[in-house]
Amino acid sequence: MSKKKRKKPAAEQTPLGFPIPSGWKGEVTDFDPRATPGFDGKKADGKELLALRDNALDELQERLYAAHHGRADGRSVLLIVQGMDTSGKGGIMRHVVRNVDPQGVDITAFKAPTSAEKRHDFLWRIRRRTPAPGIIGVFDRSHYEDVLIHRVHGWADAKEIRDRCTAINAFERELTEAGTVIVKVMLHISAQEQGERLMERLDRQDKHWKYSPGDVDERLHWDDYMEAYTRALRATSTVGAPWTVVPADRKWYSRIAVQQLLLNALEGIDPQWPAAEFDVEEEKQRLRATMG
Amino acid sequence: MSKKKRKKPAAEQTPLGFPIPSGWKGEVTDFDPRATPGFDGKKADGKELLALRDNALDELQERLYAAHHGRADGRSVLLIVQGMDTSGKGGIMRHVVRNVDPQGVDITAFKAPTSAEKRHDFLWRIRRRTPAPGIIGVFDRSHYEDVLIHRVHGWADAKEIRDRCTAINAFERELTEAGTVIVKVMLHISAQEQGERLMERLDRQDKHWKYSPGDVDERLHWDDYMEAYTRALRATSTVGAPWTVVPADRKWYSRIAVQQLLLNALEGIDPQWPAAEFDVEEEKQRLRATMG
Repeated sequence: MSKKKRKKPAAEQTPLGFPIPSGWKGEVTDFDPRATPGFDGKKADGKELLALRDNALDELQERLYAAHHGRADGRSVLLIVQGMDTSGKGGIMRHVVRNVDPQGVDITAFKAPTSAEKRHDFLWRIRRRTPAPGIIGVFDRSHYEDVLIHRVHGWADAKEIRDRCTAINAFERELTEAGTVIVKVMLHISAQEQGERLMERLDRQDKHWKYSPGDVDERLHWDDYMEAYTRALRATSTVGAPWTVVPADRKWYSRIAVQQLLLNALEGIDPQWPAAEFDVEEEKQRLRATMG
Repeated sequence: MSKKKRKKPAAEQTPLGFPIPSGWKGEVTDFDPRATPGFDGKKADGKELLALRDNALDELQERLYAAHHGRADGRSVLLIVQGMDTSGKGGIMRHVVRNVDPQGVDITAFKAPTSAEKRHDFLWRIRRRTPAPGIIGVFDRSHYEDVLIHRVHGWADAKEIRDRCTAINAFERELTEAGTVIVKVMLHISAQEQGERLMERLDRQDKHWKYSPGDVDERLHWDDYMEAYTRALRATSTVGAPWTVVPADRKWYSRIAVQQLLLNALEGIDPQWPAAEFDVEEEKQRLRATMG
């Protein structure tokens, strides 16, 4: 792909999702989970677009790896995906992330912390999984659980939550200053849609393993979760590491939106194929000498 | 997919690649790197087959994860891919492995060991990367480097190489007894084909980063490497963890062959969707009560 072609990709023309500016004072419930901001096509168009952009994502990832891997000052991308149960985090991994070279991607699904992890600061296990130069790191849940579920269940008081948000902002600033582009996504589904997705898991024997009775327990705290998201986004959507609320009632839409956010992050880095660190003609001669 | 349909998949009908039996006395150079054993179609047919079987691989991986993840006695798969430079290891990762859920796959590309790794036994860093229950682990290069490049360059003497093979067999037996199905693949390319692939890397600016002058240095030891592979396969192709030599001059063929080996491994485990550990009807009622 020529440099010219990469300069004005379709992906940059209309932002998808709802970008959350620094200083935002809104509520996540202001956003319609069925909306498709920035895209006026239908499901089939969305699927087509996703497939079309796979190649661009693939090439940009390879360039990032080629240009930055192994460099002490190399750039990287960190995609943080948060959302309620069934909001489609797994689908993002399967339908967006898996379309790039698996060797250049480092996915971490953060579960409830282990007892070993609990003995450390909440960012300890997160720091261990931040992407190396040249790599796209992906967090399926993240340090944001410590200001979401912890707020909802009162496992941390208001001051502690504020302190954690401050620590998160400092941590993320550190990352961006070291060359990581952070993309933070809230997959925003409606309570109605979640109910239907959970019911499907209960209706299908091959989906039972994805269901746990705790899912309904958490669902009973829906409004508290929305409030916790609102507060987390207000406190941590910074200029350097802004959030995007991605409507997720339509899975196909959330996938093209996250794909575009990744494309934008990579295009911002604009990684170039590195110049050869050897004499190309000399190597061709050496190689020819080995061929029959 | 019904159980009946899974019982006799096309993949099991004709083995692809050259299976190496325990006690084998041959030479890897006996095998034609351009052959397509078990498959009489052409490139287009091979590509079609690869795409067709993606879904089967995807479902079997998900079943493996659902049934075995988190279980102390759970099953797993370990795919070990060895081969000369340019033999297509990366292509296996991109075109076979990446078509399953990335969260159920754990890929490790083993490079030259770090100084920290060198302070340990050669299997130390390998043990740390063996797949957890429910996971497909993939090694791009492996502990076999310690009996291949080490033999070629004389970094270990004959006795040490023999001892390492003994240690490898014991280690792999341990893994298989703990429930891991080990699939060992030698991607077998010809010196001529490697020469052409290296030349392509030199001809294209976007491929220069994949080339290193050391590639030609290693190429000069071609016959020694073939001998080292022969000896390694003779010593470590066991009943529990056999090798398959996969002709790799035709990339499309090597991909369908490795895909089939993975399918066979998973079909051997035959993972079933786990039964619900909760009362499905009761959960449906609880869920319905939360819906408007």
